[in-house]
Amino acid sequence: MIRSTLVLAAGCLGLHGPALAQSTVSLFGTVDLNLTFAKSGERSVRAMDQGGNVLPSRLGFRGTEDLGGGLAASFWLEAATLPDTGEFQGVGWQRRSTVSLSHNSFGELRLGRDYTPSFWNVSQFSPFGTVGVGGSSNIVEGWPFGLGGAKTLVRANNSVGYFLPRNLGGFYGQVMVAMPEGQQGMKYSGARLGYASGSLDIAASYGQTPVEGRRYRNASLGGSYDFGVVKLYANYLRQKNAPESQTHAMLGLSVPVGAGVIKASIARANRSGPGVDADDATQVALGYVHWLSKRTAVYGTWSVVRNKGNAAYVVSDALSDPQAGANSRGLQFGISHNF
Amino acid sequence: MIRSTLVLAAGCLGLHGPALAQSTVSLFGTVDLNLTFAKSGERSVRAMDQGGNVLPSRLGFRGTEDLGGGLAASFWLEAATLPDTGEFQGVGWQRRSTVSLSHNSFGELRLGRDYTPSFWNVSQFSPFGTVGVGGSSNIVEGWPFGLGGAKTLVRANNSVGYFLPRNLGGFYGQVMVAMPEGQQGMKYSGARLGYASGSLDIAASYGQTPVEGRRYRNASLGGSYDFGVVKLYANYLRQKNAPESQTHAMLGLSVPVGAGVIKASIARANRSGPGVDADDATQVALGYVHWLSKRTAVYGTWSVVRNKGNAAYVVSDALSDPQAGANSRGLQFGISHNF
Amino acid sequence: MIRSTLVLAAGCLGLHGPALAQSTVSLFGTVDLNLTFAKSGERSVRAMDQGGNVLPSRLGFRGTEDLGGGLAASFWLEAATLPDTGEFQGVGWQRRSTVSLSHNSFGELRLGRDYTPSFWNVSQFSPFGTVGVGGSSNIVEGWPFGLGGAKTLVRANNSVGYFLPRNLGGFYGQVMVAMPEGQQGMKYSGARLGYASGSLDIAASYGQTPVEGRRYRNASLGGSYDFGVVKLYANYLRQKNAPESQTHAMLGLSVPVGAGVIKASIARANRSGPGVDADDATQVALGYVHWLSKRTAVYGTWSVVRNKGNAAYVVSDALSDPQAGANSRGLQFGISHNF
Repeated sequence: MIRSTLVLAAGCLGLHGPALAQSTVSLFGTVDLNLTFAKSGERSVRAMDQGGNVLPSRLGFRGTEDLGGGLAASFWLEAATLPDTGEFQGVGWQRRSTVSLSHNSFGELRLGRDYTPSFWNVSQFSPFGTVGVGGSSNIVEGWPFGLGGAKTLVRANNSVGYFLPRNLGGFYGQVMVAMPEGQQGMKYSGARLGYASGSLDIAASYGQTPVEGRRYRNASLGGSYDFGVVKLYANYLRQKNAPESQTHAMLGLSVPVGAGVIKASIARANRSGPGVDADDATQVALGYVHWLSKRTAVYGTWSVVRNKGNAAYVVSDALSDPQAGANSRGLQFGISHNF
Repeated sequence: MIRSTLVLAAGCLGLHGPALAQSTVSLFGTVDLNLTFAKSGERSVRAMDQGGNVLPSRLGFRGTEDLGGGLAASFWLEAATLPDTGEFQGVGWQRRSTVSLSHNSFGELRLGRDYTPSFWNVSQFSPFGTVGVGGSSNIVEGWPFGLGGAKTLVRANNSVGYFLPRNLGGFYGQVMVAMPEGQQGMKYSGARLGYASGSLDIAASYGQTPVEGRRYRNASLGGSYDFGVVKLYANYLRQKNAPESQTHAMLGLSVPVGAGVIKASIARANRSGPGVDADDATQVALGYVHWLSKRTAVYGTWSVVRNKGNAAYVVSDALSDPQAGANSRGLQFGISHNF
Repeated sequence: MIRSTLVLAAGCLGLHGPALAQSTVSLFGTVDLNLTFAKSGERSVRAMDQGGNVLPSRLGFRGTEDLGGGLAASFWLEAATLPDTGEFQGVGWQRRSTVSLSHNSFGELRLGRDYTPSFWNVSQFSPFGTVGVGGSSNIVEGWPFGLGGAKTLVRANNSVGYFLPRNLGGFYGQVMVAMPEGQQGMKYSGARLGYASGSLDIAASYGQTPVEGRRYRNASLGGSYDFGVVKLYANYLRQKNAPESQTHAMLGLSVPVGAGVIKASIARANRSGPGVDADDATQVALGYVHWLSKRTAVYGTWSVVRNKGNAAYVVSDALSDPQAGANSRGLQFGISHNF
């Protein structure tokens, strides 16, 4: 994930004293638009869609203030945008809105609306992330909310999170609890623990959310290994809200070719439960990203979802009212620009 | 149109390598508020309105990244704001939200929500633009959407645009197609071709949008010539959605006087069709803009609309529920500040 | 009120001429999140809330352009945000959206949505401001709108304001009129006059708003005196919409202790009118703010509201549907980060 943000250093301006010398506030974002040609059974659609290359379109402000002695304060406000129509997506800084205190040795305490630990494996250990026709989440049931009324597969409001410090010899991790404040499916507790060193990155996560007297749970194990000529990805996700559950297993690879990257993934979703036992799906995705700079890319992605039973997963939201049991396929060509 | 934006140059901060040396991200905007005294027949209103001097109130972010070899990537996110009440107008970055790849020799490919080619003549070749009591669009039927259900007179969602490069000896031009994605009156195709050299600027545009089985079309021809002591403007716009149509012809001038500009325009709208044949109107506008700097002006504008038949055009939106056939007049005093 | 904003000086970038040398545009804001434990009678709630330390969460852009000769143009766009859920609060730049012309000797003319003169005493002369469980406004009836349908106790749309210049030997003041534009309770006229010199700051305000044939009025007198070891605050507010009225009297103090500040306040609200004569309340608040830098603090606040009659004031909005006549108490621990 390449991010080249414009850093507005206070120090540049000679207007702040030494206390702020290390402090920065950044404007950052992504504008990613593409042409999408997608099918669900006999239905086909041609649309402009956004967010086909790892990151969806977004705009944000974030900053870190060095408080001295290894301590820092940070904020992060990030909104989702739909530049094909100009609309904001969701409620405001719905991607993330947090304030943090962090210490080099003791880790980070983070408050606000944030990604859950459950989210990261699905996103990080997939060559296509969770966006576009090739996104690994296309056949994850309930995405971005979760199975059976849980709303915490990706994000949680009113959360308190703790992140391990970065000096643990490659180990990283986080725990989070989120208060429901009276809303069903919004209470969350979860954790993630990983190890990254050299070419290897591996992590496991667990999360749970009570929904109407039942308990929604998800767990995942994933990793990536970069051989240089090829980087391999794998992730296994299971979400359960008894008597229903779904497993999602994904294998992927990316191959750098000059300024470009060839990417491929295959994923399999297996749903269990009364009346949905046969509603399984397989997704295959193939793509090429050509980086014009560290910030800007053009890309093309092809993907097919084979649905079984009454599964009606599609490669693109542009396919509204998808046909149960029908396969879906799509092609996407776009520009992704990060700032 | 004077725009002095704050350019946040990455190079200033010593945090990015040479690849970004030519890259900029800008925060820009306009806050324009005025006191409006307006009448429609016997009804009068006193209100605070926004956007009386060429540009309405807005806030945006835009940037360009030099990719080398004449190639550049750009984004533009621009929201409309109503600072008299603090409200955002519309859906988000509703004025414009685009991503582009452009090349010095090959022109620009632009995706997203953007102005249609149809819009520019009406705006560019009028001394008052399309805002305020003197705005040339006050007697354009359906503005900002279009006649008979078309929504593409000013902007289009899901658009793919191509702009000619700037080295064509004064010729400029653009074509645009926009996908409706299931929404009536939103599919658009159009083009604009112009020539600007020295004091002369002249352009023609054409656009069309299918609406419920019929075809909405608009065409315009306009230009300006700057004699130094006076600049002259003229534009002719015709929009048609058979059996209805409207023509709008405008003549204008601006005279620089020290740090100020005196502006005047006269426009005539002629509507045709069953039951609306007599609904014509004439608008006369007179104004003075005093520039306190390149970015800031105070201004006063007076305008009158003479309605015929059942025409009910008004000089200001503050006049809700206008009286059919009654004349409308208005006076506006304001401050316009660009950043 | 500590504000350390990132100032993006145009002069830094070498892109603007000398006319803009003194001009700045700033991105600024606050992210303040806390854990709130609150009770109303037997009902208790545990929630994440925002804005517990003087300033609520917000994001804004503001700028000043030096026009020469003592004249300047300014804009201010400030939005309210709720980072616990990521939502924008209200309509856009609802905290303030203004454009100004100001002169060193003649004062400032300001247009737009702005704070009323009525607001400032309640906010400025309280150690807790008007936010959090200790906020002085918790027992002000109708806050942030006003008694009996008036909506102008804190802010007004469509306002024209005049501020005295700053060179009047310590005297400061402002007058404001706001146009209703057809909305009940939105027409406002008011003024504030104060004197600040050395350790002393004292001010009085008056405001009125017609509501459905009656006249809403508020008046306040407040001040602070900084003895160094302790700063004392006092404010008296009376709002009336006959036959109903309420008085609110507050005393407060703050004591600096190293990098921290201990704060305390007691307030008494007395409501009068048919059926509400007994609905009075007392609030006591105690807090400690520990500043980690000029921009960042951690804080803890405890507060109790004793309700009489059918008064149902609470220490936190998280207590929806409060119990009439029951006491409310709360504890809040948070992080406040300004940028």
